[in-house]
Amino acid sequence: MSRFAGRSGPIRLGMVGGGKDAFIGAVHRIASRMDGEFELVAGALSSTPERARESGAALGLSPDRVYDDFEAMAKREARLKDGIEAVAIVTPNHLHFAPARAFLRRGIHVICDKPMTATAAEAKKLAGEAERSEALFVLTHNYSGYPMIRQARAMVEDGFIGRLRGVQVEYVQDWLASAVETQGSKQAEWRTDPARSGAGGALGDIGTHAFHLAGFVAGERPEAISCDLTSFVDGRKLDDDARVLMRYASGAKGGLWCSQVAPGNENRLTLRLYGDKGGLEWSHEAPEHLIATPLGEAPRLMTRATSGPAATDLQRVPPGHPEGYLEAFANLYREAAAAIRAKRAGEAPTGLLPTVADGLTGVRFVEACVDSASRDGKWTRLP
Amino acid sequence: MSRFAGRSGPIRLGMVGGGKDAFIGAVHRIASRMDGEFELVAGALSSTPERARESGAALGLSPDRVYDDFEAMAKREARLKDGIEAVAIVTPNHLHFAPARAFLRRGIHVICDKPMTATAAEAKKLAGEAERSEALFVLTHNYSGYPMIRQARAMVEDGFIGRLRGVQVEYVQDWLASAVETQGSKQAEWRTDPARSGAGGALGDIGTHAFHLAGFVAGERPEAISCDLTSFVDGRKLDDDARVLMRYASGAKGGLWCSQVAPGNENRLTLRLYGDKGGLEWSHEAPEHLIATPLGEAPRLMTRATSGPAATDLQRVPPGHPEGYLEAFANLYREAAAAIRAKRAGEAPTGLLPTVADGLTGVRFVEACVDSASRDGKWTRLP
Amino acid sequence: MSRFAGRSGPIRLGMVGGGKDAFIGAVHRIASRMDGEFELVAGALSSTPERARESGAALGLSPDRVYDDFEAMAKREARLKDGIEAVAIVTPNHLHFAPARAFLRRGIHVICDKPMTATAAEAKKLAGEAERSEALFVLTHNYSGYPMIRQARAMVEDGFIGRLRGVQVEYVQDWLASAVETQGSKQAEWRTDPARSGAGGALGDIGTHAFHLAGFVAGERPEAISCDLTSFVDGRKLDDDARVLMRYASGAKGGLWCSQVAPGNENRLTLRLYGDKGGLEWSHEAPEHLIATPLGEAPRLMTRATSGPAATDLQRVPPGHPEGYLEAFANLYREAAAAIRAKRAGEAPTGLLPTVADGLTGVRFVEACVDSASRDGKWTRLP
Amino acid sequence: MSRFAGRSGPIRLGMVGGGKDAFIGAVHRIASRMDGEFELVAGALSSTPERARESGAALGLSPDRVYDDFEAMAKREARLKDGIEAVAIVTPNHLHFAPARAFLRRGIHVICDKPMTATAAEAKKLAGEAERSEALFVLTHNYSGYPMIRQARAMVEDGFIGRLRGVQVEYVQDWLASAVETQGSKQAEWRTDPARSGAGGALGDIGTHAFHLAGFVAGERPEAISCDLTSFVDGRKLDDDARVLMRYASGAKGGLWCSQVAPGNENRLTLRLYGDKGGLEWSHEAPEHLIATPLGEAPRLMTRATSGPAATDLQRVPPGHPEGYLEAFANLYREAAAAIRAKRAGEAPTGLLPTVADGLTGVRFVEACVDSASRDGKWTRLP
Repeated sequence: MSRFAGRSGPIRLGMVGGGKDAFIGAVHRIASRMDGEFELVAGALSSTPERARESGAALGLSPDRVYDDFEAMAKREARLKDGIEAVAIVTPNHLHFAPARAFLRRGIHVICDKPMTATAAEAKKLAGEAERSEALFVLTHNYSGYPMIRQARAMVEDGFIGRLRGVQVEYVQDWLASAVETQGSKQAEWRTDPARSGAGGALGDIGTHAFHLAGFVAGERPEAISCDLTSFVDGRKLDDDARVLMRYASGAKGGLWCSQVAPGNENRLTLRLYGDKGGLEWSHEAPEHLIATPLGEAPRLMTRATSGPAATDLQRVPPGHPEGYLEAFANLYREAAAAIRAKRAGEAPTGLLPTVADGLTGVRFVEACVDSASRDGKWTRLP
Repeated sequence: MSRFAGRSGPIRLGMVGGGKDAFIGAVHRIASRMDGEFELVAGALSSTPERARESGAALGLSPDRVYDDFEAMAKREARLKDGIEAVAIVTPNHLHFAPARAFLRRGIHVICDKPMTATAAEAKKLAGEAERSEALFVLTHNYSGYPMIRQARAMVEDGFIGRLRGVQVEYVQDWLASAVETQGSKQAEWRTDPARSGAGGALGDIGTHAFHLAGFVAGERPEAISCDLTSFVDGRKLDDDARVLMRYASGAKGGLWCSQVAPGNENRLTLRLYGDKGGLEWSHEAPEHLIATPLGEAPRLMTRATSGPAATDLQRVPPGHPEGYLEAFANLYREAAAAIRAKRAGEAPTGLLPTVADGLTGVRFVEACVDSASRDGKWTRLP
Repeated sequence: MSRFAGRSGPIRLGMVGGGKDAFIGAVHRIASRMDGEFELVAGALSSTPERARESGAALGLSPDRVYDDFEAMAKREARLKDGIEAVAIVTPNHLHFAPARAFLRRGIHVICDKPMTATAAEAKKLAGEAERSEALFVLTHNYSGYPMIRQARAMVEDGFIGRLRGVQVEYVQDWLASAVETQGSKQAEWRTDPARSGAGGALGDIGTHAFHLAGFVAGERPEAISCDLTSFVDGRKLDDDARVLMRYASGAKGGLWCSQVAPGNENRLTLRLYGDKGGLEWSHEAPEHLIATPLGEAPRLMTRATSGPAATDLQRVPPGHPEGYLEAFANLYREAAAAIRAKRAGEAPTGLLPTVADGLTGVRFVEACVDSASRDGKWTRLP
Repeated sequence: MSRFAGRSGPIRLGMVGGGKDAFIGAVHRIASRMDGEFELVAGALSSTPERARESGAALGLSPDRVYDDFEAMAKREARLKDGIEAVAIVTPNHLHFAPARAFLRRGIHVICDKPMTATAAEAKKLAGEAERSEALFVLTHNYSGYPMIRQARAMVEDGFIGRLRGVQVEYVQDWLASAVETQGSKQAEWRTDPARSGAGGALGDIGTHAFHLAGFVAGERPEAISCDLTSFVDGRKLDDDARVLMRYASGAKGGLWCSQVAPGNENRLTLRLYGDKGGLEWSHEAPEHLIATPLGEAPRLMTRATSGPAATDLQRVPPGHPEGYLEAFANLYREAAAAIRAKRAGEAPTGLLPTVADGLTGVRFVEACVDSASRDGKWTRLP
């Protein structure tokens, strides 16, 4: 039973990380705000106290709810009568585990950015913590919140593509094509630093998104992978390009390619699934469309207008009014809110939110890829 | 000087219309919420008292801030110490004028849906009211809030297309292709009813958007139009298809086509501008792109990544993470908030928000089109 | 009965016009060659004798089959035992009528470029000549030869879109955006010269294509038009931009826009048809696709692979191997060959080839537009 | 010195294979005919004599130039005064080597379909034959004949993308998604039969095209590959899906995916190249476009209109009039004609025609992939 049983109204939210100039913290805040389900009331927004205070003031937080560190925040908020019910963790990867554990242990729901942790060892421990906690753990694989991705998933479940044969998933960017980490880009700095990112560069940052999305829609995950990793930019310690072949227990085959050095690509995440009866294609560049082809027939250019409830239950505006990244992200927050309300009511949360298990799988995928790459692409089983 | 001088924090917002099942009310609420600038605290949400109360409760409004009618709301809120500072008017067209006047007269800022009024006579009166009021009047021609539309506008200003020659603007839908107004669609009912919509059907509902957008980007508006109107669906009293030719004082020519009976189109709003030096193309179906062609060179597929501050100042997420309809709408709310804060500070509001003058022009455009159509397409001057 | 009854093998072809540097002559030659149905054996390729001889030599014509003028060619070829059976007329507009008449009167089949003539008076006379001749007259409205255009036409006939409501057709280019006719462009020179082109500039050059295509697919032609014409480039005597509204006897409405001054457009010919049951869209920039939307369903991205014989009977390579402009043009030549062979056999030619009646309608369309434009857009009946 | 020194006029062409119902034979014939450079005068069109005769008659060949087998044809044509100067070999893979050798040995130029042979052993022998022959050997990797592919190649040479980092090439189809080879498809029968196709299924049929194209444009070929092969359709003996990782000596990495079982794909051949300065993208579905992105700038949507002579020297119609598969194929024939004429004149042929060396590399690529796949994806060097 949740310690928040009986609460009503907006869910009080805290945030770890997300100070000024952070990218993903702002995204979480907008996403949490979009449906009026959450109210940001506390934060440990930066490891630099002054920056934390400035950021808190800019966000209109009460000064006594602005903390110097997550530990202090967890302790005090857990004791407050109107303390936070959930916390968003939006720090670099190596700073996910400790705060997540701290809040889970106090029964405060955790909404955590991906990849879940910097190492599989941490991920495994965190999975244990989540299991032992009465609180929820939600991982923001936000691309799974797109309506047409949900529609694709529902169609796969319904047998539209038949038996899965092929998976082609890509996440391609160009923002790391040169050594921007040495030229003042904070975002690039930690993402290219093994101490903060973990074993994977592009793999962890975007490869885990691609990997999760493919599994989310296909309903299957590979049992083994072979990987070739490259760091194209001189001096870069982590991969900025990863090419992965995948084998599924069902006999399906797949390819995953993620790169951060491919000029002309902003966030080109694409997913293609093929089975013996049909094919599905989705692209993040046109996220409101799903191209669905029954074998031998003309491709259907599906939108929410011609989708089922898997998609339309998530929409905020009618078809033809484009929804995008923030709405998809907010869909996870809305589902998290529903899950948290279910907890309040003593009910079992339902839904399709990415879990701690997904997080563990993602980090293991990264480490398996690094391992395979270090052994000249040897096929490596995913645990 | 605004009567709200000295206030700080989120702007207290009221809403007229927007009860359950309304479409545009929900859009305004999300848009107002996205950046944390507004707080919805009061509403006259429906003309049916019970419905108004239910809707207020569903939105978490305090019962004493839920009103049976806008007049009561205007009177009381104007007297409250923490009364609303702005009101969103999201009723059908014929119910814009009276509430707008009521709030303007009380110094409460008005954010009003389009078309501004049901008649040009009302529009002219409202323009006078706005002029006499210390409060702001903002018209939500939301498409002008898209970053790449702002970029297009800036490029036209900077001379990218040279001297304007051609304007092609379309807004095409299919949701009224059959007589859905007789089959229970509330949205269709009032939009096809002259008593509630005014003289224009598709013209008022979407034609005014197209007309505003073309002028917003081109920096010119036609001086005369010729129009052919049609009601394709049996029994429909207002146009569901309008074809308009346009002439500009500069010598440019244009075409505007809006239709609500064209199968395969959801909200296909497209704008193309051509000058003697270049061309620009934008489509609502891919709103993050702007195709810009210097005469004789290859088209550039521009995004926010390769745009200037006109676009990037509006963005909430990095390029490649698609923003859409709600973000564009929220951009107007964010600009309205800035203007309201300027008012608080006794400063002149700046920015590109559609004004009461735009509203008047839009309603006059509708009436000129209807007039031209009734005279077999006679070229008719826009006042 | 054709005077060529009993002939077999490739059809001997002559050409009027099409000397060096001509554009459309080369197209006709490739189109005639593609299926091995024609053999070019004679030509009056230029009005300059030396140029005619050089061009003939370059094409490998026997010197005695290279003529100084079409009259000489018509006379002699008609007497030769192995004289030409058909002639392609690829001269500027004002030089279509005389040669067409000369060959028709001698029973030689005529394949004529568009617009059919420079004036409606000539067009009417030519229609009479064609009626009196035993020879065929074929007008190369080549866009009607695209497989997916044929498919669209068949679908309209089969009721796919239901009752026609809207037609939107555009043909937009940018090659005349500046005064290239004064800078050495032969193609531009005659197309902007009323003495050689007739009353229409863009109207005649590309507007007639758009007009024909819309009628070909829709199965209906407008009964009245209203037109606004512009010459944007200083000193240009003919329109380089035409905006036309159209009314159909059935109640349908339409818009036609052609322009040669719109930067970023090469040969953007697009056709959209909407009825009460569905919509169809085709674009010359992706001519192998047809977007077909049954009202309320997802658009189908049709190709030849999912089309019927209307499209597939014309294909030379399997779907997915793009066919283009030359193949579409060659489809008319192949159909002309079939019609000529039918004539040889004393059978009635069948098929969808554009006729002298289409040519007359096209020239009348141009003149009606010019007339309407000169009377401030007065709605003008098409005879 | 060519034995055809002094000949002039069209090049007499023979054909081996290409009887009724063949696909690629008809393509070669149209391609050879398009520019009037070749004249088909002889053929060993089928291994079934009656079918050979029927096919010859249908093509208008003189009966004494229709042969029962290629050997007879090679012998007699070599002796005829007006014998063929070149031969097109359009048989299944296992029937390329013998005829190619026969004609090369007699000094008759060979234009051979791909893959060059069914085995690398044959390919190596053929390379020797070609070296010893005075005749030309041309391999029809037709995709290299697209103007925008040539433009891409020229831009890579000119340094547009800088140093190559990534190559992504795909050729994806769906026509073998079910067991059509058991249902009467002749095209499928031999392509899925190791005895006729060689070691590769999809690999040989389309993978070799993808492999050649990537190397043609990039100017580099991988030095090693790792491959995973699958036969998804029950009972199929050859791969219908191949996923290949590639490593280049320069440090670049690549992925090649070819599949014939991916519903919704007709002939989706796509090529993407990325370097440290820019990126290039081309798709066979829109072959007239090339997307070129300088790092940090907006993508350019290039066409022939904004390309250099590498593209425009190949065009037959102005930009905006789509050219396609047949024109690209014909470009190779036109270049072959130029090479043959150079031979006639005793000059060295120039140009970019795929050679016997390309053919050998392609067949070795197939065998390396099969070898790697059989050893669990072991990285395998390309000789």
